[in-house]
Amino acid sequence: MKVLILGGGGMVGQKLARHLAAKGLNGTSVDLTLHDIAFPPDAIPGAAQKTGNLAEPGQMEALAKDRYDVIFHLASIVSGEAETDFDKGWQVNMFPTWRLLEALRSEHEATGGSYVPRLVFTSSIAVFGGPYPDQIIDTFFCAPQTSYGAQKAICETMISDFSRKGFVDGLSIRLPTICVRPGKANLAASSFFSGIIREPLNGKDAILPVPDTVRHWHASPRSAVGFLVHAAGLDTRRLEGRRALNLPGVSCTVAEQIEALRRVAGEDVVARIKPQPDPAIQKIVAGWPRDFAPERAIALGFTAEQSFEEIIRVYIEDDLKPV
Amino acid sequence: MKVLILGGGGMVGQKLARHLAAKGLNGTSVDLTLHDIAFPPDAIPGAAQKTGNLAEPGQMEALAKDRYDVIFHLASIVSGEAETDFDKGWQVNMFPTWRLLEALRSEHEATGGSYVPRLVFTSSIAVFGGPYPDQIIDTFFCAPQTSYGAQKAICETMISDFSRKGFVDGLSIRLPTICVRPGKANLAASSFFSGIIREPLNGKDAILPVPDTVRHWHASPRSAVGFLVHAAGLDTRRLEGRRALNLPGVSCTVAEQIEALRRVAGEDVVARIKPQPDPAIQKIVAGWPRDFAPERAIALGFTAEQSFEEIIRVYIEDDLKPV
Repeated sequence: MKVLILGGGGMVGQKLARHLAAKGLNGTSVDLTLHDIAFPPDAIPGAAQKTGNLAEPGQMEALAKDRYDVIFHLASIVSGEAETDFDKGWQVNMFPTWRLLEALRSEHEATGGSYVPRLVFTSSIAVFGGPYPDQIIDTFFCAPQTSYGAQKAICETMISDFSRKGFVDGLSIRLPTICVRPGKANLAASSFFSGIIREPLNGKDAILPVPDTVRHWHASPRSAVGFLVHAAGLDTRRLEGRRALNLPGVSCTVAEQIEALRRVAGEDVVARIKPQPDPAIQKIVAGWPRDFAPERAIALGFTAEQSFEEIIRVYIEDDLKPV
Repeated sequence: MKVLILGGGGMVGQKLARHLAAKGLNGTSVDLTLHDIAFPPDAIPGAAQKTGNLAEPGQMEALAKDRYDVIFHLASIVSGEAETDFDKGWQVNMFPTWRLLEALRSEHEATGGSYVPRLVFTSSIAVFGGPYPDQIIDTFFCAPQTSYGAQKAICETMISDFSRKGFVDGLSIRLPTICVRPGKANLAASSFFSGIIREPLNGKDAILPVPDTVRHWHASPRSAVGFLVHAAGLDTRRLEGRRALNLPGVSCTVAEQIEALRRVAGEDVVARIKPQPDPAIQKIVAGWPRDFAPERAIALGFTAEQSFEEIIRVYIEDDLKPV
């Protein structure tokens, strides 16, 4: 099975690639290609790397000609960057998806309709905008309050329509905020959610820019890989034309996150979290969803952690380097 | 006040233009320009006509340079045509809106940010897809089941984001099915809703392709003009970042429409409606919304008819030629 990961050099892309290279995709071995603008130094054995900028015309068209069976589309710039660089946000986060869909449709037509690739698109809970109900239900509307969220919502709608017409077989999965991210902080405003767990566990201080009453929606990188793999194997007829899904996750406050860290790692580790209010980040975070009732995704078999403590333990198992 | 109507040659565009030429816009006289691919033979006094294809690159950019204060964007191909001609649907119903927004943003930046035009976009209840609740509430999600609906939903999202950034001051109004349309049947699958009233009132037979139990959501062309004028004058801060609105209308079954026609025009007129089931149209119509609870739009002062009988009387007053 030919599999392509767009954004294969990123954190989730790399974890997905390692999973697929080791275990295949839902029981089938894969011929794996990663595409990204750059890759980490350690290449994944069994995964071909293609370096390129998906925003350049011709990139998506060239990739489509290879007729992958499954395409994971994880490539985007993060919310903070899409907000500060308006042009880049649309040119990276929207137009390449359109060109990909058009190029896949060309291949579909060139094969007389027999080529219909599975396309799994990583959308985001940023498609939503406040004010929110206590829990966001599956039929709650998209009113994004960031360009990143708008671009994700638009890609979802394009993918749904190309799928409805039978040119591709796509679905969009709205990832919770993925936490605990390994490695360094990134430009996303949500970066501190990982930072306040990761840095203390690695013996470093972490800044907490928001009050500990902030509630948010999380799943681990391991769950993200699980979501993607499950989406690739899903019988999409079960979606009944509603091809964007809110995924399961853990709703908790920052105080609950810190308590979970205390239980797992002790008081000395928690003491490394330093409150330092940042009004700019507080304003952004105030507009984010806090809780979901993702009944459809659960019924379709998507699973995540049951508690934030479990999310921390996943980080320790999968990513924390022994000191 | 400089006003542009994109799609100014269409039925609603022409009615809006006549209204603005006669009465101005919310008390201010207008310098009115209409743009469309073609116009009816009788030009509207006081309205300049520009003939052009908005899907051609350069058209939107040239129009934007004239820095209109208010732009009504009514231009699109109808649902049936967007479904049968996939390429044309996207090239007419989506990309020109993107180019318009980008061109308006250029003018905004060229004026150091002082030029922020009001943009009123006619969206549609086709942004929704079934199954539906009994009444669609204002926070019900968009899951379009036609390319037309997908294109409208995407334009809404773009307009909201450009507005959030302050480049334009836009809003999208989701028109009910406009009924009774004067003139000839068009390519829209909804055309019969007008036909079964208009043709009998003009002494002609009309085909009814669906069971009379079909329920749908309507407003008159006069209400459509009222919606557009009201949207142009609205204080958009009241939208609180949710710039797409479900509008008021009348929910009724075809049987209720026919009863209303009987009350207004008598049994002989109703006898001109000839049931002739059409499975293709029935299938399309089965996916359409039936009723709304448009609380936000009503609170914002949008108004429509209270009954289908009133809709018929509006047609007789505004459009029925004396025999």
